[in-house]
Amino acid sequence: MQIKSVNIIGFGNAGQAIAKQLIANGCAINAVLLKSNTRLKIAAELKLLVYEDIQALPEADLCIICVNDGEVEAVAKHLTNSKRVVHISGTTPIDKLSGILHYGVLYPLQTFSEGRLVEMKNIPFIIDANSESFNAELVQFASEYLSPNIHKLDDHQRRVLHLAAVFANNFSNYMLLVAGDLLREEQISFDILKPLMVETINKVFDLGAEKSQTGPARRKDYDTIKSHLVMLGDEDLKKLYTLISDQIMKK
Amino acid sequence: MQIKSVNIIGFGNAGQAIAKQLIANGCAINAVLLKSNTRLKIAAELKLLVYEDIQALPEADLCIICVNDGEVEAVAKHLTNSKRVVHISGTTPIDKLSGILHYGVLYPLQTFSEGRLVEMKNIPFIIDANSESFNAELVQFASEYLSPNIHKLDDHQRRVLHLAAVFANNFSNYMLLVAGDLLREEQISFDILKPLMVETINKVFDLGAEKSQTGPARRKDYDTIKSHLVMLGDEDLKKLYTLISDQIMKK
Repeated sequence: MQIKSVNIIGFGNAGQAIAKQLIANGCAINAVLLKSNTRLKIAAELKLLVYEDIQALPEADLCIICVNDGEVEAVAKHLTNSKRVVHISGTTPIDKLSGILHYGVLYPLQTFSEGRLVEMKNIPFIIDANSESFNAELVQFASEYLSPNIHKLDDHQRRVLHLAAVFANNFSNYMLLVAGDLLREEQISFDILKPLMVETINKVFDLGAEKSQTGPARRKDYDTIKSHLVMLGDEDLKKLYTLISDQIMKK
Repeated sequence: MQIKSVNIIGFGNAGQAIAKQLIANGCAINAVLLKSNTRLKIAAELKLLVYEDIQALPEADLCIICVNDGEVEAVAKHLTNSKRVVHISGTTPIDKLSGILHYGVLYPLQTFSEGRLVEMKNIPFIIDANSESFNAELVQFASEYLSPNIHKLDDHQRRVLHLAAVFANNFSNYMLLVAGDLLREEQISFDILKPLMVETINKVFDLGAEKSQTGPARRKDYDTIKSHLVMLGDEDLKKLYTLISDQIMKK
């Protein structure tokens, strides 16, 4: 069948982004399940029917579970009457949804933060399903209503991708957090780093990360490394700088 | 005076990028000093006069020292007959050029790699000078021929900025190198991370790094952290993951 209507279970940052993208592309959202009142306003702005009782949800072609990873299994237990259910988690095994007729995964490889509208139209969606036929339905659904950038990965591959994304996004963001702290002490605007970071990302996807690696550790410039460690008063930052520099030098 | 011609001393990745930008904006390059024959071809393509003997260089309004940080002082000792000299290093103190009449710094905040043409027109140039008048000349020169994005910083501020750029660029690039290694083992294309990284950079400069921080460490999701450590067979990667996650959790 062609999936044309959905229920959204959980309305955090990821759930909201997916809902907005579905609406923008003309997919019907029959209902949203909310546990927090704080998001009632956002649901109202999108003109979505809101439910608090999972048992009372109206029918829809597909239920999309957008709750925290740890709550997916418990939520799925209440959805055994639904014929088609997916979760959007990078780490949760697909079989946490077993007991449902057609189940699968629709994992958006993106970073979601409170109050930020994320561009979804070209982001990768990772798909998995408990049958070939449901897989095909999900591919059609995702490419029509979410993004043309679709990849089929199994549980293990998806978990490795999620781990890689932790290094790529979470840890890079932390490096920028440290950089911003250093600049703030000198009253230098964080924005000064923007052109450098745009080139960092452009270069790494053009040349690859090995050829793109530059800096004192890469060229084994021990004088500069030593002077940087003196400048970093904080013991934690010294440890961080030393560990990453050592690993770059080993490569 | 208005600086209208330059000599480029040293023709590595940064020297080449600066030379190309100067040429593109109509600044005369009187000569380039090369120590390696491998770059003769690039100099020829740009129709630049090449010298190997620093004493033989023709006159120019400004000499730009583009050699490695550790060689700046030695090179400057041969340029005491030149009236205006700058280096482009993030870490080298301005006074390594003392002995020259007008001396200063023109540090481009950018990452340069072999064989990659870098967009220079909006990147930040950090300026410093041994006098107000030479500072004004450098600001005029840089804004006319290099980039309108000009900042005046002293030695200490420039060194902190360089250190911040090591975290922002070098260390983020290393995080992407690790991510790429993980994906390669699963035959997943590195390019799958591109939309995520574009959003990572857009978000961090819109919301700031603290509000942009997401992931298992940020939400203290110990189950996911534990499962990631199991997936990371390599001891070095376990150490890296643990240290950064601990520091994110402490924030």
